[in-house]
Amino acid sequence: MLIREATSADWPAIWPFFHRIVAAGETFTFPTDLGEEDGAGWWLLPAPNRTVVAVDEDGTVLGTAKMNRNHQGNGSHIASASYLVDPAHGGRGVGRALCAYTVEWARAAGFRAMQFNAVVETNRHAVRLYESLGFTVIGTLPEGFRHPTEGYVGLHIMHLAL
Amino acid sequence: MLIREATSADWPAIWPFFHRIVAAGETFTFPTDLGEEDGAGWWLLPAPNRTVVAVDEDGTVLGTAKMNRNHQGNGSHIASASYLVDPAHGGRGVGRALCAYTVEWARAAGFRAMQFNAVVETNRHAVRLYESLGFTVIGTLPEGFRHPTEGYVGLHIMHLAL
Repeated sequence: MLIREATSADWPAIWPFFHRIVAAGETFTFPTDLGEEDGAGWWLLPAPNRTVVAVDEDGTVLGTAKMNRNHQGNGSHIASASYLVDPAHGGRGVGRALCAYTVEWARAAGFRAMQFNAVVETNRHAVRLYESLGFTVIGTLPEGFRHPTEGYVGLHIMHLAL
Repeated sequence: MLIREATSADWPAIWPFFHRIVAAGETFTFPTDLGEEDGAGWWLLPAPNRTVVAVDEDGTVLGTAKMNRNHQGNGSHIASASYLVDPAHGGRGVGRALCAYTVEWARAAGFRAMQFNAVVETNRHAVRLYESLGFTVIGTLPEGFRHPTEGYVGLHIMHLAL
């Protein structure tokens, strides 16, 4: 698996699983009806923020991550990131590799911490993954997310000092 | 004191204290060098979000609030708001009136909760005001804010169920 910079040429490969995951509305606070063109604007970030893809030996896109400054002004030392793994390629450590990559990026870019603003508490696989990389839940917005089958559930705010 | 919709015609009255407060860099995670034109874009929000001003009997702008959806998609039921009071008109309950106004707006607009994403913990007057209106600190981002004189201090995430 290789993690490299994403370009707009990767969007046709990202869009099918981006759309599937976002439209399902179980894990992201993105508009669930986000279209292909608008979705690219949400995901492919301009510098100094970054978007990467994890690709297989044959170039297949397995997953993607975006990483960005999370606050402005005197909160500029806090980074954030988001991850999407193609469900067809789950269970291979793609999410873990992407998350670790973004932590290294944030550290190298001089950020002092990472913050996730909205981790759906029923997305237990993601919560466990982030915790295994050192993130902790610093607070939970009660009923912050309307899960399509589980009803109103909490949104974790997670943090990792760098 | 009257609270009414802000228009771009109010910006010249808002800008001097907006600039003073934002440039001081003690309470907002806005770029501290935000210029007058860009500042208007940060503060005067298009519908369905709203910006209001609190004005005196003679029309003097005492303070202002913006209120907005805080998450998208399945987090769309969470609102947020921000407040600025002209220091020349502090101590008159302007901040409290603006905060109460935004809570009522959020309730009437059908939001289920309000969330403040980044309340600087050394801004004790604001924290106490929000708590007196029922908000609670649900988490604190450690060292999330670089205060110009107090160094790295926490950023509270605050919440009020509606």
